Amino acid sequence: MLQIVRTVSDLRALIAERRKAGQRIAMVPTMGALHEGHLTLVDAGLAAADEVVVSLFVNPTQFAPGEDLDRYPRDEEGDRAKLETRGATILWAPVPTEMYPDGFATSVSVGGPSEGLETEHRPHFFGGVATVVTKLLLQALPDVAVFGEKDYQQLQVIRRLVTDLNIPVEVMGGPTIREADGLAMSSRNAYLSADERAAAPALREALKRAGRAVLEDSSPPQAEAAGAEHLAASGFHKVDYIAIRHADSLAAVTPHDIASGVPLRVLGAAHLGKTRLIDNLDPRSET
Amino acid sequence: MLQIVRTVSDLRALIAERRKAGQRIAMVPTMGALHEGHLTLVDAGLAAADEVVVSLFVNPTQFAPGEDLDRYPRDEEGDRAKLETRGATILWAPVPTEMYPDGFATSVSVGGPSEGLETEHRPHFFGGVATVVTKLLLQALPDVAVFGEKDYQQLQVIRRLVTDLNIPVEVMGGPTIREADGLAMSSRNAYLSADERAAAPALREALKRAGRAVLEDSSPPQAEAAGAEHLAASGFHKVDYIAIRHADSLAAVTPHDIASGVPLRVLGAAHLGKTRLIDNLDPRSET
Repeated sequence: MLQIVRTVSDLRALIAERRKAGQRIAMVPTMGALHEGHLTLVDAGLAAADEVVVSLFVNPTQFAPGEDLDRYPRDEEGDRAKLETRGATILWAPVPTEMYPDGFATSVSVGGPSEGLETEHRPHFFGGVATVVTKLLLQALPDVAVFGEKDYQQLQVIRRLVTDLNIPVEVMGGPTIREADGLAMSSRNAYLSADERAAAPALREALKRAGRAVLEDSSPPQAEAAGAEHLAASGFHKVDYIAIRHADSLAAVTPHDIASGVPLRVLGAAHLGKTRLIDNLDPRSET
Repeated sequence: MLQIVRTVSDLRALIAERRKAGQRIAMVPTMGALHEGHLTLVDAGLAAADEVVVSLFVNPTQFAPGEDLDRYPRDEEGDRAKLETRGATILWAPVPTEMYPDGFATSVSVGGPSEGLETEHRPHFFGGVATVVTKLLLQALPDVAVFGEKDYQQLQVIRRLVTDLNIPVEVMGGPTIREADGLAMSSRNAYLSADERAAAPALREALKRAGRAVLEDSSPPQAEAAGAEHLAASGFHKVDYIAIRHADSLAAVTPHDIASGVPLRVLGAAHLGKTRLIDNLDPRSET
């Protein structure tokens, strides 16, 4: 049975009750509009704990003016049904005033892995994410929290902040779930026209090409350029970045780093029409 | 018996053990060099809980270059003896690398009550304080944390951040403890020469004069100027501020606010030789 809570005090009371019964608690933070990618994170939570709290909050502070806050897909009824079927036990769906009451004045910011990539194109994004994720984790205090690898830079930023602030929660990454043609599932895929949808798998293909190129001796800039060229040729009209980075710190890597086997990640973000898509992969296991 | 712990994992294991035994936990964060002011906070913690964790960490990130980090008084042996006598049960004395490990990249910042006053003169101070206090509270997760009213703006900043980040800890203020002549106890009083020590009580007297003046119909700027004049006449060579503020938000107040009874606080900071002293009081109960 999925229980729905709307206030922090109700959430804490419910979790305290479950813990008293010996239950281990996982949390999956989401902005709703749930698809198979989110539901796989619920599976991962149920594998690591007895109960899963899913939070559903479209966080206004991580959208810049002019981004898609207003048209971001919302479907709480549909989300509830999916979560119930999948075995989540608590839906934490706060009203905005419960998250940001009058006089709210605190923010969490993370350097290190948040530098570059998304931050170059969405400068306010990780400030908003870091603050709301800190709040969500401290509201629920789960044993473990699961975040999708689809938002890979976000996952590394969250790992950093949880370590740095000593938040007593274990962070787990969950795998990216893909459509049959390789497109990473995302709530924003709903924005794509039929033609854009047909072109969208080129993002993953571009990441694979960049990954193969850098493992076959191209320099990182050459390999990144090869990936970007594939996107341009496939109908993407603007490439924010294709980047080959250290998988943990997201620092740039040299050919020497690559030859010595440091963990790598290829990350990309690009625009199809009005829609911005992101994806990433491990070039040693996925190309 | 006072137990000393040096790592977060030992701290958490010890607190978990005490909680399992049904104990309620209070925390008193300090930078050591303990005096009666700190020990009164330990008393307040023991009144509110069964056990008191005292943290002892001279936090480098809240000192600016050129401030007194290097000469800040340190006396762990003496502190241990005082805490043992007073009934504290856990001394949390981390090594700096346990607090700020390699790659540390996160900071917490608070607007609202941190604006002006101390921030005008020590612009990095509350950023350092907010980050380290968030860490200390999340390391120990006490039921209640006690902070001295002596650092009144800091107390309001901490109340704001605990509310805003949903840190599951109750914040309590503890009273300022004074020498017989009214000087607020402070680790920094140890820096004062005999002449400076004789002049130091003028800070409290200046706050009282400002408070009386504003309650007797002076405008806040007039009352603040009267306080500052008393300091200058008493041998203080630089007044950072004497300020009459709303006691919770620390916003400026108008004569109309004062007449309608909003809670007030008079705060001051000024220099005697190389030593900077701060103090504050409630003008309605202490003048």
